[in-house]
Amino acid sequence: MEKTMRSLWLENQTLKISPEFQIPVPGKNEALIRVRLAGICSTDLEMVKGYYPFTGVPGHEFVGEVAAAPDNPSWVGKRVVGEINITCGTCRECRAGRQTHCLNRSVLGIKQKDGAFAEYLTLPIRNLHAVPDEVPDELAVFCEPLAAALEIQTQIQVHPDDRVLVIGAGRLGQLIARTLALAGCDLQVLVRTDAQRKLLDSIGAAIITQAELPQRSMDLVVEATGSPDGFLLAREAVRPQGTIVLKSTYKGQLNLDVSSLVVDEIKLVGSRCGPFAPAIRMLATGLIDPANLIDATFPLEEWQAAYASAAAPGTFKVLLRP
Amino acid sequence: MEKTMRSLWLENQTLKISPEFQIPVPGKNEALIRVRLAGICSTDLEMVKGYYPFTGVPGHEFVGEVAAAPDNPSWVGKRVVGEINITCGTCRECRAGRQTHCLNRSVLGIKQKDGAFAEYLTLPIRNLHAVPDEVPDELAVFCEPLAAALEIQTQIQVHPDDRVLVIGAGRLGQLIARTLALAGCDLQVLVRTDAQRKLLDSIGAAIITQAELPQRSMDLVVEATGSPDGFLLAREAVRPQGTIVLKSTYKGQLNLDVSSLVVDEIKLVGSRCGPFAPAIRMLATGLIDPANLIDATFPLEEWQAAYASAAAPGTFKVLLRP
Repeated sequence: MEKTMRSLWLENQTLKISPEFQIPVPGKNEALIRVRLAGICSTDLEMVKGYYPFTGVPGHEFVGEVAAAPDNPSWVGKRVVGEINITCGTCRECRAGRQTHCLNRSVLGIKQKDGAFAEYLTLPIRNLHAVPDEVPDELAVFCEPLAAALEIQTQIQVHPDDRVLVIGAGRLGQLIARTLALAGCDLQVLVRTDAQRKLLDSIGAAIITQAELPQRSMDLVVEATGSPDGFLLAREAVRPQGTIVLKSTYKGQLNLDVSSLVVDEIKLVGSRCGPFAPAIRMLATGLIDPANLIDATFPLEEWQAAYASAAAPGTFKVLLRP
Repeated sequence: MEKTMRSLWLENQTLKISPEFQIPVPGKNEALIRVRLAGICSTDLEMVKGYYPFTGVPGHEFVGEVAAAPDNPSWVGKRVVGEINITCGTCRECRAGRQTHCLNRSVLGIKQKDGAFAEYLTLPIRNLHAVPDEVPDELAVFCEPLAAALEIQTQIQVHPDDRVLVIGAGRLGQLIARTLALAGCDLQVLVRTDAQRKLLDSIGAAIITQAELPQRSMDLVVEATGSPDGFLLAREAVRPQGTIVLKSTYKGQLNLDVSSLVVDEIKLVGSRCGPFAPAIRMLATGLIDPANLIDATFPLEEWQAAYASAAAPGTFKVLLRP
């Protein structure tokens, strides 16, 4: 087997490609995975802007094939997706079952762990999920963001008779809208572009613009715009004693009128990584079909065009094929 | 019966007393209540500072006796406490069972309804709760703030094995600490003064100072300081996926790092008015005994001394006897 590979490298907010990057060596109970397809996420774009000071191989949405697993050879050859938080298993959070909040975690392509924009990556076996044959690579690569969308329903109960508003219909908002629609709730999605509107045509939600924002009447509002403005819209739309789920991370602070949150007894819920198993099930059964979110697929060598395409307004998902 | 009464009056942030205020006339299904004892709350102090632009008789914590109830004569002579939100019964929030969030509400002594710092007040019969004989006036007057403390447990479940921190041990914080202690949880209370510490001696909580603030480890933090600083302490103390209950209202905005709430998946819950019935039960059974929170009782004529005493650092509850 080769010892070197093509890989992106992020350092001081600068990306470059190296054709002779060292192929990583799996540690104990780790697998070496050949990346088949990887997705560019808003976090990847934010990291280049300096949102998080990561140095290494970026990329955390991927589907791949196990190339080696010295301690677990039965995994070799399997097509897999992988949870991105690499956890210690022994800290207070891990022992409490909150592994995604491990105090000593590294995070694939985000924190102290080289990621998926490369020919190979390594992950602990316990992070892996086998992908059923009926889920092609182009859908499996959506597992990580779809799991993040599903995190909402692990945190709060969405009732079938709830009035629900999703603000922001970009990459993540599209997946969130699709998962919430399955609850049978009275769903509205606030869009900014015709492209966003068109992709939501088939999910049975009411598509609205900012001018039609509901006033103090929504049981649940999910803020997924990726900007501070989204919160103000959410606050305007949510009913007294209603819930706002926060899905956006961005640089900078928000000015908040806390007293009004108290008077209206609003609940805010921060929401991040979610469960992979149901995401895989929903892709396998076709309950969620994100295929129409793919705008383009680039070979890894064309990473510059891929990043530019992903950052362009109106783009949903851009994939890289190492 | 007399037609005039002594009453405080708030206008343009200025308080005065009038000896010849018109006794209010009960409307349909209202009772006229002679106020036996009333409590001065932080909201009363904040209103004088302009927190809320109220013009009228202030005061919303009271115990009284029904003097007249034309449509419901069986209530006459009963000793009562009263819920402070006067609701329309027909708006969207009322019909959904969220009466304290009635879109057309007036609020006793706070919004469009004369309050309890007077010899008489009126309230709808449906707002009244009879006070059992075993609850003296000095305890019954705590019903409203005790109900507000209990609102927390109507919103979230406090588990017996939760690690809980109350930040702020003033008027409301003291009642919150006492109610949370009954859950059997591992309770800590952050105090600023020896007087606050002393009043908590008997509830079985660990009393700490700011220097001993727990770091990212509390399941639940209740912020009851009445100032923006309290939130920053709460944020520091709460664990990933933990809950911060917001009980403070104050003028001004808070600068919030929303991304960190998302990454740590923190839940914020605004919390206001609560249920009277359990508050009365807990006072009647002695589960909660707020007697040691009373610093002084003044006749209504001495309202200036009473307000000054209530506003002095280290004061807990000051009562007015009209």
